[in-house]
Amino acid sequence: MSNFPITNTNKVRRMPKRGHYDRATVYGIIDEALVCHVAFVIDGMPTVIPTLHARRDDELLLHGARTSRMLQHVAAGNPMSVAITLLDGIVLARSVFHHSMNYRSVVLHGTGRLVESTEEKVAALEAFAEHVARGRWVDARQPSRKELKATSVIALPIEVAAAKVRTGPPLDEDEDYALPIWAGVLPLSLRAGNAIPDPRLDSDITVPAYVRKYRRLGS
Amino acid sequence: MSNFPITNTNKVRRMPKRGHYDRATVYGIIDEALVCHVAFVIDGMPTVIPTLHARRDDELLLHGARTSRMLQHVAAGNPMSVAITLLDGIVLARSVFHHSMNYRSVVLHGTGRLVESTEEKVAALEAFAEHVARGRWVDARQPSRKELKATSVIALPIEVAAAKVRTGPPLDEDEDYALPIWAGVLPLSLRAGNAIPDPRLDSDITVPAYVRKYRRLGS
Repeated sequence: MSNFPITNTNKVRRMPKRGHYDRATVYGIIDEALVCHVAFVIDGMPTVIPTLHARRDDELLLHGARTSRMLQHVAAGNPMSVAITLLDGIVLARSVFHHSMNYRSVVLHGTGRLVESTEEKVAALEAFAEHVARGRWVDARQPSRKELKATSVIALPIEVAAAKVRTGPPLDEDEDYALPIWAGVLPLSLRAGNAIPDPRLDSDITVPAYVRKYRRLGS
Repeated sequence: MSNFPITNTNKVRRMPKRGHYDRATVYGIIDEALVCHVAFVIDGMPTVIPTLHARRDDELLLHGARTSRMLQHVAAGNPMSVAITLLDGIVLARSVFHHSMNYRSVVLHGTGRLVESTEEKVAALEAFAEHVARGRWVDARQPSRKELKATSVIALPIEVAAAKVRTGPPLDEDEDYALPIWAGVLPLSLRAGNAIPDPRLDSDITVPAYVRKYRRLGS
């Protein structure tokens, strides 16, 4: 897959060696993460909120109630920034100074568009359902016309994009390696526990395999 | 602990029932989460980036290289917004429409100040180390004067703050409860795996208990 052009906006400034601009890395992070953080500006003031996302081809999708202030604001063509972050580990160095995190993150900038056609909206809702739990779309009750109307979908082209990735052990100052201090990485991952059936669920209905054996991509 | 005043800025608009304005809820989320997402505005354009945070009393602390664009920008008194998000589960409803997430999130707004005194800076670095792994500060090699100089710390008063929390089973339309569709919650949590020693670590040095038995608060 091709690379994103490096511009003043998406260039990784701090720790440039951690920057990645290839679609495979960026899309892998977007697809594995469940939620993103969306930043927008109203009256010069920034706001950032968490929300579920999905990806369809080269667009990041956001959705929510038609009345959502954030969705209305970005649907009006106002600039937005989106960050998607996966935590992979705590990096415990010998020195406090060199402590770090292993992580994979993506930052996007751009302008969203409101998805208007019913067909594209349904495809987007399928992408959200499948992003959350692959296999869920066909099992669940499909959106009604009323529900579709109540939902807004925004598509943000994934164009101004960069990933930032840290992996591997701590990097300490040469003279610190002799110190009698434990150093290493404590891996972290978002894991699923045992499914909790809805108290109102008919006990004859068994847990689907995509819930029972749930895993995020790549995790 | 007291409540934060509800203003136009921190009021939870979407799903107001999920809003919480008490310090215990807000601080519990801040203290459990490892990272936050910081939004700021440069030339009218929003940017959001992930970074580690810590809390000292009623301030959120951010830190990084003195040369960090984000830290320099917010140290100059520009407004910022910070979101902190914990994912607790995937809520699988019978209808696609009522799918949701269980989560606990905090959104803050305000203006940071650069921490200038050495004493306060060291206390902040202790807070970061202890936020990441309680017990780490006394074990690790303390910051040198040079390292302290190379690090900026920003303190954001936790004043304009709100938490948003969803818990519990899916809520479906009355007529959907009869559908033969599995519904429930798949719990999610950030878990630590087995510590990976630095390849350069002396094998006589054992893993500290706070790494071996690592847990986030409340998890």
